[in-house]
This record gives sequence, structure tokens and C-alpha cells, in this order.
Amino acid sequence: MNENNAVEILIVEDTPQDLELTLRALKKAKLGNRIQIARDGAEALDFIFGEGPYSGRPVTAVPKVILLDLKLPKIDGIEVLRRVKSDDRTNSIPIVVLTSSKEQKDVVESYRLGVNSYIVKPVNFDGFAGAVQELGMYWLLLNQPPKIDG
Amino acid sequence: MNENNAVEILIVEDTPQDLELTLRALKKAKLGNRIQIARDGAEALDFIFGEGPYSGRPVTAVPKVILLDLKLPKIDGIEVLRRVKSDDRTNSIPIVVLTSSKEQKDVVESYRLGVNSYIVKPVNFDGFAGAVQELGMYWLLLNQPPKIDG
Repeated sequence: MNENNAVEILIVEDTPQDLELTLRALKKAKLGNRIQIARDGAEALDFIFGEGPYSGRPVTAVPKVILLDLKLPKIDGIEVLRRVKSDDRTNSIPIVVLTSSKEQKDVVESYRLGVNSYIVKPVNFDGFAGAVQELGMYWLLLNQPPKIDG
Repeated sequence: MNENNAVEILIVEDTPQDLELTLRALKKAKLGNRIQIARDGAEALDFIFGEGPYSGRPVTAVPKVILLDLKLPKIDGIEVLRRVKSDDRTNSIPIVVLTSSKEQKDVVESYRLGVNSYIVKPVNFDGFAGAVQELGMYWLLLNQPPKIDG
């Protein structure tokens, strides 16, 4: 895989409206390139670890950020977070939880497992789009990604 | 300590010019309240863990974010990061390394120790001020802090 064509953002989101809104907001901020979408936790893990349909994809080709919903089919977001953050090959990948859950147990558990940032989805359209643009600029342009060699 | 008066940002910075510029940028973005400054790593740890001159300060009164320089007198930033992230009482506190170091070993080691974000200080005045404002808004207004009870 050409490093310059590597995926920059992995979006793990099963709700079609939220996914559509996220993609539109990123595109508007000109951050819409090199996005990978996973619609459940199992697909996300397959992509990250280069397994299943993504067999052969190098686990070292890490995205700059993973946007992770918590309520997901098959494998939930907390479990995805746990697996990525407990594996030395992937634990440096910045993970931002983007969820409608304000429950304290989800917040506490996410931080305990090593989430980099936790963002509650704003309920209105403009707030949601603004939050996605702000986090996109922060993690794609300002933050220095881990750049793991492999 | 009144929760509403708790420190929001701990800035750990020994370079007077960088500290001055950081404070000015935060103030301009109206993020300049409830800031604590530590000028070396030992003072930062005393503040965070409520020891030495900060004896009696509850370790549960966690800031929303710690801005951490790496090259610091007495105890360096990597060691501060290691101690905060290896203690169950404090490992949820978001830490952003803000440094002039682009060295890959610092980046890799910071992520390995669990840094939430790593930002290289832009070399010019406007770039630096803009980065501080962006990270201030992100961590104080957008990110959901861990809110540890105690």
C-alpha cells in the first residue's frame, strides 16, 4: 500500500443519518479524502487488524484517527476500544468516541480503556456538523499522529 | 474546593515566552480562566497529586486538560506523563503534549505512555497562538472530560 494513499480516518458508525452528516461535514471542511467506513464493530476490527475481508492489509498502515460510535451491531464500541488499546501494534492510534451517550459509565469506561477523546454528539444538525469539522481539523491537521513504521 | 472553581487547565511550561504566548492566546479566545501554571515537572506532579506545596488539594479535582511541555527542569515531561498515566487516580486526565520536539522517539514514547494528543509547537507567532486556541476550544468546550467523582 502506498503510504500517501493510506486511509486517514476510519469512521465506525451504523446510523445512516449520522454517517451521512459526518461525511458531508468532513467534505465541506475539505477533509473528505481517504475515509474508510465500517458499519459495525466486527468490520472495524477486521479493517484495523487486517483480517477477514481486509486480509493482507498491513496492520502498520494506521489511520490518523478512528471515530468510534459506541452502540454498534455485532461488536460494540467499548469492545473495539478495548481490543485496539490493548494491542501493542495498534494502541497508539488516536481514538475519538463520538456517541449520543452521556452516561457516566460510558465516559469513565472509555477513559479507563485509554480513549484519546470523548465527544457527545450534539443533537442539532448544525452543532453536529460543527463538532465533526472541529474534530476533523484537530486530529487530521493539528495533532501529530504516531506514524508507526512497519 | 468548590467544584465550580476547580482548575480547568494545567499548563506545564518553563519557557517564559511560550508561557506568555499561551496565556495570551487562551485569554483572547476567552478560555483564560481557572488556569494553573507549573514551571517544572516536579511542581506539576505536586499539583496533580496534591503533594508538597499543594498538600491537601484533592487528587480527584482533575483539570479538563494538561498541556505538557517535554523539556522541563527537575522532572521531564515524559516522566510526568508516565506517572500520571500509570496511576489509576489520574490516568483519565487528558494530556496534550505541546512541544518543539518533532523527534520520532518522543512521539512514539508519548503515545506508548498513553498521551491523548501530541502537538508540535508551530514556529511562528500566529501559528502558535492559533494552535493554542484550537486545542483550548477542543479540550475545554468540545471534549467530554472524565469527571471523576471523589
